[in-house]
Amino acid sequence: MPNSDQNFIDSNSSCRGSYYTMSSKKASIVMLAAADASRFGESINIVFRWKRSLYKMIWRHSLVFLVVYFSLTALYNFGLEKDNKKHFEALSAYFARYTRSFNWMIMLGFFTNTALHRLFTMQMTTPGTAKTATIFIMSLKQDLPEGPDIVDQYARWVVLAWILTFRSVCKPLRDKFPNLTAIQTSGILLEEEKRILQRGGYPTPRPLIVIEWLLLLLKECVKEDRYINKSSHNKNVEAVMTFKKGCSNIIKFSTQNIPYAVIQAVIIVVYCFGVVTAMARNLPKFDNEIVRHVIGYFPVMPYIQFFVFIAWLSVGRAAVNPFGNDDTDIDVRKLCEAHMQDLNWLTELYTKKLDDVFYNLP
Amino acid sequence: MPNSDQNFIDSNSSCRGSYYTMSSKKASIVMLAAADASRFGESINIVFRWKRSLYKMIWRHSLVFLVVYFSLTALYNFGLEKDNKKHFEALSAYFARYTRSFNWMIMLGFFTNTALHRLFTMQMTTPGTAKTATIFIMSLKQDLPEGPDIVDQYARWVVLAWILTFRSVCKPLRDKFPNLTAIQTSGILLEEEKRILQRGGYPTPRPLIVIEWLLLLLKECVKEDRYINKSSHNKNVEAVMTFKKGCSNIIKFSTQNIPYAVIQAVIIVVYCFGVVTAMARNLPKFDNEIVRHVIGYFPVMPYIQFFVFIAWLSVGRAAVNPFGNDDTDIDVRKLCEAHMQDLNWLTELYTKKLDDVFYNLP
Amino acid sequence: MPNSDQNFIDSNSSCRGSYYTMSSKKASIVMLAAADASRFGESINIVFRWKRSLYKMIWRHSLVFLVVYFSLTALYNFGLEKDNKKHFEALSAYFARYTRSFNWMIMLGFFTNTALHRLFTMQMTTPGTAKTATIFIMSLKQDLPEGPDIVDQYARWVVLAWILTFRSVCKPLRDKFPNLTAIQTSGILLEEEKRILQRGGYPTPRPLIVIEWLLLLLKECVKEDRYINKSSHNKNVEAVMTFKKGCSNIIKFSTQNIPYAVIQAVIIVVYCFGVVTAMARNLPKFDNEIVRHVIGYFPVMPYIQFFVFIAWLSVGRAAVNPFGNDDTDIDVRKLCEAHMQDLNWLTELYTKKLDDVFYNLP
Amino acid sequence: MPNSDQNFIDSNSSCRGSYYTMSSKKASIVMLAAADASRFGESINIVFRWKRSLYKMIWRHSLVFLVVYFSLTALYNFGLEKDNKKHFEALSAYFARYTRSFNWMIMLGFFTNTALHRLFTMQMTTPGTAKTATIFIMSLKQDLPEGPDIVDQYARWVVLAWILTFRSVCKPLRDKFPNLTAIQTSGILLEEEKRILQRGGYPTPRPLIVIEWLLLLLKECVKEDRYINKSSHNKNVEAVMTFKKGCSNIIKFSTQNIPYAVIQAVIIVVYCFGVVTAMARNLPKFDNEIVRHVIGYFPVMPYIQFFVFIAWLSVGRAAVNPFGNDDTDIDVRKLCEAHMQDLNWLTELYTKKLDDVFYNLP
Amino acid sequence: MPNSDQNFIDSNSSCRGSYYTMSSKKASIVMLAAADASRFGESINIVFRWKRSLYKMIWRHSLVFLVVYFSLTALYNFGLEKDNKKHFEALSAYFARYTRSFNWMIMLGFFTNTALHRLFTMQMTTPGTAKTATIFIMSLKQDLPEGPDIVDQYARWVVLAWILTFRSVCKPLRDKFPNLTAIQTSGILLEEEKRILQRGGYPTPRPLIVIEWLLLLLKECVKEDRYINKSSHNKNVEAVMTFKKGCSNIIKFSTQNIPYAVIQAVIIVVYCFGVVTAMARNLPKFDNEIVRHVIGYFPVMPYIQFFVFIAWLSVGRAAVNPFGNDDTDIDVRKLCEAHMQDLNWLTELYTKKLDDVFYNLP
Repeated sequence: MPNSDQNFIDSNSSCRGSYYTMSSKKASIVMLAAADASRFGESINIVFRWKRSLYKMIWRHSLVFLVVYFSLTALYNFGLEKDNKKHFEALSAYFARYTRSFNWMIMLGFFTNTALHRLFTMQMTTPGTAKTATIFIMSLKQDLPEGPDIVDQYARWVVLAWILTFRSVCKPLRDKFPNLTAIQTSGILLEEEKRILQRGGYPTPRPLIVIEWLLLLLKECVKEDRYINKSSHNKNVEAVMTFKKGCSNIIKFSTQNIPYAVIQAVIIVVYCFGVVTAMARNLPKFDNEIVRHVIGYFPVMPYIQFFVFIAWLSVGRAAVNPFGNDDTDIDVRKLCEAHMQDLNWLTELYTKKLDDVFYNLP
Repeated sequence: MPNSDQNFIDSNSSCRGSYYTMSSKKASIVMLAAADASRFGESINIVFRWKRSLYKMIWRHSLVFLVVYFSLTALYNFGLEKDNKKHFEALSAYFARYTRSFNWMIMLGFFTNTALHRLFTMQMTTPGTAKTATIFIMSLKQDLPEGPDIVDQYARWVVLAWILTFRSVCKPLRDKFPNLTAIQTSGILLEEEKRILQRGGYPTPRPLIVIEWLLLLLKECVKEDRYINKSSHNKNVEAVMTFKKGCSNIIKFSTQNIPYAVIQAVIIVVYCFGVVTAMARNLPKFDNEIVRHVIGYFPVMPYIQFFVFIAWLSVGRAAVNPFGNDDTDIDVRKLCEAHMQDLNWLTELYTKKLDDVFYNLP
Repeated sequence: MPNSDQNFIDSNSSCRGSYYTMSSKKASIVMLAAADASRFGESINIVFRWKRSLYKMIWRHSLVFLVVYFSLTALYNFGLEKDNKKHFEALSAYFARYTRSFNWMIMLGFFTNTALHRLFTMQMTTPGTAKTATIFIMSLKQDLPEGPDIVDQYARWVVLAWILTFRSVCKPLRDKFPNLTAIQTSGILLEEEKRILQRGGYPTPRPLIVIEWLLLLLKECVKEDRYINKSSHNKNVEAVMTFKKGCSNIIKFSTQNIPYAVIQAVIIVVYCFGVVTAMARNLPKFDNEIVRHVIGYFPVMPYIQFFVFIAWLSVGRAAVNPFGNDDTDIDVRKLCEAHMQDLNWLTELYTKKLDDVFYNLP
Repeated sequence: MPNSDQNFIDSNSSCRGSYYTMSSKKASIVMLAAADASRFGESINIVFRWKRSLYKMIWRHSLVFLVVYFSLTALYNFGLEKDNKKHFEALSAYFARYTRSFNWMIMLGFFTNTALHRLFTMQMTTPGTAKTATIFIMSLKQDLPEGPDIVDQYARWVVLAWILTFRSVCKPLRDKFPNLTAIQTSGILLEEEKRILQRGGYPTPRPLIVIEWLLLLLKECVKEDRYINKSSHNKNVEAVMTFKKGCSNIIKFSTQNIPYAVIQAVIIVVYCFGVVTAMARNLPKFDNEIVRHVIGYFPVMPYIQFFVFIAWLSVGRAAVNPFGNDDTDIDVRKLCEAHMQDLNWLTELYTKKLDDVFYNLP
Repeated sequence: MPNSDQNFIDSNSSCRGSYYTMSSKKASIVMLAAADASRFGESINIVFRWKRSLYKMIWRHSLVFLVVYFSLTALYNFGLEKDNKKHFEALSAYFARYTRSFNWMIMLGFFTNTALHRLFTMQMTTPGTAKTATIFIMSLKQDLPEGPDIVDQYARWVVLAWILTFRSVCKPLRDKFPNLTAIQTSGILLEEEKRILQRGGYPTPRPLIVIEWLLLLLKECVKEDRYINKSSHNKNVEAVMTFKKGCSNIIKFSTQNIPYAVIQAVIIVVYCFGVVTAMARNLPKFDNEIVRHVIGYFPVMPYIQFFVFIAWLSVGRAAVNPFGNDDTDIDVRKLCEAHMQDLNWLTELYTKKLDDVFYNLP
């Protein structure tokens, strides 16, 4: 059955997309494929890719740099007379002194390193909805008549809290759910719940209201004696608090991640470096005609230096705010859909039995 | 209902302010907005912002630097005669040798990196009042007549311990609550409790006294059999001990964070570097008139070098003491108000039932 | 009994291979042996090893570098006339200015450091199948008639989820198990289970389906009262969720590890550096005949500089994707076999008693 | 009541000293005050402070450096004749080549970074006595007649184990408690216990003996059924094992922290750098009279370079051994006193009730 | 009683050796003494120590370096004629260009930093036998007739698993216990157990067999109802699994710690640097006789540069494999003896009561 196997591979790689909170299915396949291939040959492939690439991040900066560079070359070659040429040469040599700015690179290196480190920590601790809901489902008695309703409600509320949290840090999700009505349309929010969330004068923020509902539901379950073990109550409270902590960390990450001033400092430094590099050309030192042409018209080396700075800066800034619209950002919309799909699965988990899946069990 | 949706967005972004222990609502919106916008165009915006900016941190230093620099230029151009000019040139060339001090930058880089790393660790482990109180509330039996009083007391004491802890590390909070009477006015402290806290001869510090009350209240609850599960007692003791540990870590962070000598070392190094950079100008090497004018009157490059150092130092120092009055610091006052607002919500959590919120539950 | 002792050492070192999730037995013995030997003498050995070595990684790059280098030398010595020689010398001196690119090395250093750090974190948190299964087995009552079947099923499913997870990130394992039939042949998957996994229209990914089976089986066990302690149910749910989290982290590591753009940036930088180094030769500065011959025909120093860059890049890239086919990668096939062998051992653990092993117990 | 408020502030800041395991009350106030003040003006204050300062650490080294430097200057100016002056100039120029030793600084930077990182980890995991004792007290039944005695014994033993542990790594504490009799005088050790600890032939170390007592006491409590919950027994055993682990980590930190060879390497490098810097002076390059006088008599720049190295080295070495007598070290004596004061408080915690503190409780 | 106090100090410092899993008692005392002493004076001591020192690590390399260096000097001074002298000078000047290889040092710095970081993590998570055994002992009922036997068996097996694990990574322990008979002689292994371990055809590695025994024993204890609490069973299973994880991490650390290729890269780089440094001497730049003598016969500066590299490399390599025979390695033999001594203490812990130690208890 080659067809089903082909199918297997496809659905398998897609599963990563929906289940394991991955961002972009396609991009990851590209990366994996690239990484799997022989490392020498395929380097070329990685380097020439455009999607999620560095080039998309920096082509505008590169363009500006090159335009400035060539304008100065044109000015020097055609726009200036003899005396002014001397002055130009002297000035550009003066700037050339500052192009080997290791200090700046050390600053930038630590900045990007810190940003990547925090991004990694955040990725590893992103709150998932599945764990909180699964623990709840597994701790309920199994033949409660109201069980399916409660489970559905609980799982839905967890996803709702997740959406409300990410909505406040992630513009694409805000575009997807511009208001509560949009969330209601997707089926995550009921009419009555929407009304409560919209009721004015609330001192507490919306995700907290939903988490309050979760806690109240847990209290109900204790009162109605719906748990298998009494000690499950504590476990569930803990799971909800952990989920809340996770949401809170996402917000903290978006707002307190790297001090504002650090980002300003590195941006200014990199832009200054760009300007200096575009102006610096050590003409007095090289008399050779060919070299002077290379300096004027093929600014490969200055551009590479600028490239290192702007690339590292772009990487750092993308890591500082990974919830944006760019290809390189975490695709929160996809993630959100995955969580919403898990909902159905989780609700089924309560009613299903192993016998429903397999027939010849011991 | 465009109005309510507008309202939704507002209250949603404000919720981050009150709930997720964020510092300054406005600043974070700015940051998020900045980060969400297209990254090329909006770089300009970030760079020109003033609030919470680097410029507020370093404008005084920059001013002093430029004043010194231009004074020396004026001295050289107008104040010195021929021989002294020679001496000045030679001296400034001598200093120019030391402006590329990578060693200093490596030291500074590790310092700021360490400071940012610890700040991040601290931010992620700041003790919250909500968790401790919620666990207590959720573990109580649900229809105790004295329940609401106990819950209110417990939650209030947790917030009180929080305030007393942060008061001792954070000057703005000390300004807000200059004495116990001020705390009492805010409703967190009762008259009787104030009297006990003020009673002289106490060998123990005040936050510890409040934590003792929490523990005694837990003992009461065991004795009066107020828990749903007996094992909840252990959980609650643990939660209180974790909270105490968190408070203790805040104090440790403020006082033992980075050794005092490290801060001295980097400050001295950066100030020395500033002085050297202001005096260094490689005049003998550049004969060209224009370049000499640029060196004298447009000290862009020396200033940028100084900028890198002073910016990185400022960032590091702000990270070492994040509880101050500056824009860049954590706004502990706002945080404190958020915790106090949570109080009401938490007290309600005990009495409220899910039926009170929704009417058509299973 | 010298024979059995010899045997002891052999099986002992092999045990690491099968049990402790090690990759290549032989390589590790080599490493340990190398490390155990006197450190001075044996340095030579490490350096000249080929398997899992740096050389295998970089010999292609080195070859290209040297070919380019010698071609340029030949061109200069035999292909160019007097004027062009001048131009060549000037150009290569111009490039020589850029070979001491500390900025580039700082960028590369942080990249490889980050990659190694994450690899280490991942290695330490790789999900193991033994823990999940052991906890389940140890929490079952001991004389259940259906016990052995359940234990076998549970352990098998854990291994199956492990394989399905690693199959999606690791090409060698995908080669080993190209489709579900191949897994079935190895005995991990039953016919019926295969049919369920192949059933189309499933919204959920395959490893999740298997984890769902595990959870359903746990529910069965609660219902049929198969646990020694009731509280074991919670422990087992937690163990499964931890296992799921581990699987999810593996996927995340493969796909979100280091941003795509970072890898592009460092590859471009290193290749540029290679080109620059191959073209740079500071001929004008050295008039001496011998030195010029050394520069032309024994490019030891330029090559070493290139070597540092390409070696560090290779190490970083191998750390970014450790699930490939290379010698240096984690040998997931071996690991997989080890997990499958553990299956038998785990199933026996349920039925065996201490008396079966020892006869004279208290 | 201004008096009591003043009192409040004082006792509040002192509380940090006794409770939150802080070292030196005064120093921390200075630091906090410094950090609270406006950051520009108060930089001057931090820099000119003497207590716990860098200067105390490095003034001896600085003195030696300057004496050597000026001796060489004197030798050159007054002790050498014309030919020898030439030789001196040539030699010092030769040494000047090596003063920009970035390699050395990178090594030193990583060393100090590692040392500070470990110190931070250690500070955050120092074992406290309060947690272990509080958990025990809170898990006892409340009206046991022997309760107060047991609680006192348990808490005392925890402190005793703490003292015996820190005594072996911290000289100041060894000076305070030169022998068991000194500990007995302080009331922590009873006569009988001292005799047991002194009994010869014990193969186990002393802190372990005390921890054994703790475990035996826990066994007693299980047997006599003194716990509220039976499961408290496990919690208490865990708490004791965690405490033991903490003690063990303190010892490990003192003895295995940074490999001995690393410290040797950095010390040698820094001292060599000092010697080189003192001898290097680039006299041939500077003909100007004034500059030569500055070089000879105002060695600001060489000293600053040496300063960076010696400061960073001192910081690293202080971080490697933080249990000494220096101002910058952790004040273990104060810490010890704080733990001993907690004893009384903890013993009271068992007997006290909330009614004893407040009279109008629900 | 000065005698007993003297005794107190001795046994106290020795206790660290046996209990807190320390390696070498003497070395640690030296280190502590060194660290306690006044830091200025005692620097000299640290630097001149030989045991566990850097010198032992690098004297061979240093010797080779110096021999090569002086041979080249001799060749230049006595072996070469005028023309060849010119060539030699030109060549050595060419090499001198490459001695300031910051790139190399950055690579080496990150390598050693990574190695030290992992060593620290490993040291902090080394599995101890005491915890696993103590938890078991404390959870048994107190008057079981078979208790002492079971406790002895359990504790012995834990130590046995520890030895079998470390035996496979640590050559000194393999020398101490060349085969199972040697372990049996030490009393850790019984005849019957040895026979089972030797039985051929076992697919599982030996430490795993012992851990299986532990699990089977736990099952026995549940069945025979030997626990105080039923929930202790779970705790014990967890403790065993944690111990197993710890053993597995030790193996992983030894074999997967730092990729093989990294070690090759840094070794090659450092050796190349050594060769380059030995050949480089900037003779053309220094005409002065004295300086040329210093360059030829007192290669202090080149050696120091080489020293930094080789020292840092040695430190990194010692951190990569800390289980060897060197002084600087962890003394696993001592550690092993300490664990074996703990055995007796642990067995006593079960039978002893507090009354046996103290007579006048409440």
